[in-house]
Amino acid sequence: MRTHIVYAHPHSGSLNAALRDEAVQTLEGLGHTVSVSDLYAMDWKAVADYDDFGPTENEHFMAAAGEAWDKGEIAEDIKAEQAKLLEADLVLLQFPLWWYSVPAIMKGWFDRVFTNGFGYRPSSDWPRFGDGVLKGKRAMVIVTTGAAESHLSDRGVNGDINDLLFPIQHGVLFYTGLEVLPPVVVTGAGWQADFADVAKQLRERLETLAETEPIAYRKQSEDYDERKRLLPGREPEGTTGFALHIA
Amino acid sequence: MRTHIVYAHPHSGSLNAALRDEAVQTLEGLGHTVSVSDLYAMDWKAVADYDDFGPTENEHFMAAAGEAWDKGEIAEDIKAEQAKLLEADLVLLQFPLWWYSVPAIMKGWFDRVFTNGFGYRPSSDWPRFGDGVLKGKRAMVIVTTGAAESHLSDRGVNGDINDLLFPIQHGVLFYTGLEVLPPVVVTGAGWQADFADVAKQLRERLETLAETEPIAYRKQSEDYDERKRLLPGREPEGTTGFALHIA
Repeated sequence: MRTHIVYAHPHSGSLNAALRDEAVQTLEGLGHTVSVSDLYAMDWKAVADYDDFGPTENEHFMAAAGEAWDKGEIAEDIKAEQAKLLEADLVLLQFPLWWYSVPAIMKGWFDRVFTNGFGYRPSSDWPRFGDGVLKGKRAMVIVTTGAAESHLSDRGVNGDINDLLFPIQHGVLFYTGLEVLPPVVVTGAGWQADFADVAKQLRERLETLAETEPIAYRKQSEDYDERKRLLPGREPEGTTGFALHIA
Repeated sequence: MRTHIVYAHPHSGSLNAALRDEAVQTLEGLGHTVSVSDLYAMDWKAVADYDDFGPTENEHFMAAAGEAWDKGEIAEDIKAEQAKLLEADLVLLQFPLWWYSVPAIMKGWFDRVFTNGFGYRPSSDWPRFGDGVLKGKRAMVIVTTGAAESHLSDRGVNGDINDLLFPIQHGVLFYTGLEVLPPVVVTGAGWQADFADVAKQLRERLETLAETEPIAYRKQSEDYDERKRLLPGREPEGTTGFALHIA
């Protein structure tokens, strides 16, 4: 097993850093080959712009990206990340929840690495949501948040953490073909969370990866019509929102 | 009326740029004083890090940010954005939907501008979700996407656009006290969308701002218990997901 961890936290002495080290150690103990993209340490370029590809006469940004992809003229730091993903069997994303999403440096990793041609094409035929460039691999989110568990519960004011993660887990990971395991969510980071407890929870999840069922997101190729709408009658009566997209 | 537009697109000749110009012209025609933070043109620093505040002995990132806030030692580019928000009556966020969220450069605007002390405090007493530093002002999202409308509809495979925007509209805008008007969503950008039609739709929304009802997000101070969970019986029976947080 090859596992690649994409990690974003600015403080090398943080709870996140300690959990990353715990993950690396546990996975290596299980026989995985582990690599880490530590985005802050790498000084990862967060902003997708025209510097990401060679000179182009195509001013339309997405089209220029696609043209650069076709010519192999994509920035080397992007190519290196793509290669790590293609080599991995398992991809872990680890980050603190900032404004109900990933830190900007990780959003920029999505924006730049999953460029037009690698992560998607603006074509309705492009295989997505259950198919895609990373099909056959698995992914899991490890997220820390200062919020208490109840704030992120089904009735919590922040919104249910599983719904808050949908644009990432479904919209990025499942979109590109990854099977997404349920996330490891550490609440109360910085005040309630006890490192020994949290590290134990993380180890248990890593030790049972093989037996863990992925989230049952519905495949675009199976459950949707040609307008990409869920086929009638697939869901239990009364289902609404993101829950529609989980079988 | 003072309107501040936060705008993120890498291409100065894009549909987004044309819509931004249309918005500025329309609002000025209506008598607004308009300012624009064009994040790409400003070369906005997307990544929140220790360079955002003066030297600190506090290694914990969020705590160091809060300490810097208390001492007034926040980076000047952040202070300038905060001042623009405080002066505005209406805040518009305009961006292309990239990987089901804002481009990294705008995520970094959230991460850095709404720093510990200005946008939030890690305290359960901090006024949030309907209260906060921007209370009394309004906000609206203007978002473009290459996806077809059906893909982002209630049953669309991408997820309902209103749910996809929840972490931004509720988690960032409403969190800091802004009343959030329903978004302007431009689908089929780059292939289906006709500029004249889209510009007309945008103008109509801008001309009717005063009469437009905000999204009825529930205030934390009114509808939630001390654990920040929605009080029992507030919602129509069977409501689940983000819909719980809209009255």
